[in-house]
Amino acid sequence: MPDIKFRNVTIFGVGLIGASLALALKENSLADRIIGCGRSVGNLKRALEEGIIDDYDPDPTTAAAEADLAVLATPVGVFPAIAEKISNSLKEGAIVIDVGSVKGDLIRRIESLLPEKAFFVSTHPVAGSDRSGFDSASSDLLRGALCIITPTELTDGRVMRKIAMMWEALGMKVSLMSPEEHDRVMASVSHFPHLAAYALVNTIAGDEPEILLFAGSGFRDTTRVAKSSPDMWAEICMVNRKNLLSLLRDFQGELARMEECLREENRETLKFLLERAAKRRLAMEEE
Amino acid sequence: MPDIKFRNVTIFGVGLIGASLALALKENSLADRIIGCGRSVGNLKRALEEGIIDDYDPDPTTAAAEADLAVLATPVGVFPAIAEKISNSLKEGAIVIDVGSVKGDLIRRIESLLPEKAFFVSTHPVAGSDRSGFDSASSDLLRGALCIITPTELTDGRVMRKIAMMWEALGMKVSLMSPEEHDRVMASVSHFPHLAAYALVNTIAGDEPEILLFAGSGFRDTTRVAKSSPDMWAEICMVNRKNLLSLLRDFQGELARMEECLREENRETLKFLLERAAKRRLAMEEE
Repeated sequence: MPDIKFRNVTIFGVGLIGASLALALKENSLADRIIGCGRSVGNLKRALEEGIIDDYDPDPTTAAAEADLAVLATPVGVFPAIAEKISNSLKEGAIVIDVGSVKGDLIRRIESLLPEKAFFVSTHPVAGSDRSGFDSASSDLLRGALCIITPTELTDGRVMRKIAMMWEALGMKVSLMSPEEHDRVMASVSHFPHLAAYALVNTIAGDEPEILLFAGSGFRDTTRVAKSSPDMWAEICMVNRKNLLSLLRDFQGELARMEECLREENRETLKFLLERAAKRRLAMEEE
Repeated sequence: MPDIKFRNVTIFGVGLIGASLALALKENSLADRIIGCGRSVGNLKRALEEGIIDDYDPDPTTAAAEADLAVLATPVGVFPAIAEKISNSLKEGAIVIDVGSVKGDLIRRIESLLPEKAFFVSTHPVAGSDRSGFDSASSDLLRGALCIITPTELTDGRVMRKIAMMWEALGMKVSLMSPEEHDRVMASVSHFPHLAAYALVNTIAGDEPEILLFAGSGFRDTTRVAKSSPDMWAEICMVNRKNLLSLLRDFQGELARMEECLREENRETLKFLLERAAKRRLAMEEE
């Protein structure tokens, strides 16, 4: 069994996930020292004051120099730039992981940028919130949730097992998937539902925000994820655009079927469509 | 100030809303005796055993005979049939209300069926759940929620005020609206979000239910209302089909705009669309 403790951990991007990971590593005594790196020194200082990190360094190159584990936890679009900046300073045998919620061609780009002496494992702790920033961070966010590891043919098996055990030690259930399958699955269960929720809010309240005074818990739940960071989600959607375009077509087809039922006053077929959905959704409660 | 206590209340349809009203009337000592009426004697017997109603009578005609207040709380499609059955047995001055979540032409049909000696006030306590049946009923369901009263030119002002005060005494905030405005608003904040949630579940999991094993809280919240009764919602959608068809067109337009952004890799415009929605949705939290 590999040792899953790390002496020095550098976290790039001390936001919701980066800070939750830092807290969880500390709580489980899996890291001796955690260094935060990010663009906002003010954010890093606050994270230090709150005891989330032990030190900070706004320069990725020097921040990575001592890292036994380097964690890419910024918005996904920034990953390649960080990989480039740290490639010359990483130690022999350093492990780099990302926690990105979309993979696209990012994994191959990071792999091509990192030096041979370092190991890269791509992971996705499927733990989120409509909130961003470390103020909402908590080790509880990870506990009980799923973490998907997406190995490629370049991934070192021993290092991958070590990272899998680290996430498991933090209470996560680890699942393996190819990067392509990961993006297809996440488009379905996460990225597309976000897009649909944003579209629903614009449809209902875009031109008439005051109508939301009459909205109840149903509307609130259905659109909760539309409170999420537009910047982060525009980026995720762009990386996963092909899967999303395919789901958009399916969704438009489903809506067209419902439209036809309404137009033709075909209550039985509409009921059949709703029953199909209700059955699937209710089955989730029985897990 | 009119007296808002009732001697005999008959509730047609002892389901989630009917039973919640029964419990709330009892708790607030606004009804001396509550009679339940419905198609399933088994359901009525259970409601009696659980103390939700004081008596039951499966025959609408006799169940309405002593009612000072008769409440239509069945699925909305059944309202006219009940109105017809009770029209000859209602007492002089009896008040009939409905609690339907869609109005369409139902109010005018009920008004045309009830005798002149009775009063009719159409109401909609906007309190629901994805669950049906009296097992989930509670007076808490009504407390703090909105109740929309939809008067017509035939509605008696004094009786309407009495009914408004009754709902207020049960903790609801009363709002007045025309039946047409009610249906337009409810299509937006409730009926269409339900339809979108059902369509989303079918799109994501219709052919691949096992993908939901990877779904997290975002998907669960976004589709929670798709657990609701397909029978009830197919009926509501049919009654409110014109408003829903109009919203479907708007929604398809919004989705088409997002599709164009993805197709043309126009991240800035997509971000703008998501920001618009996030701003509207976040504003709801500040109320």
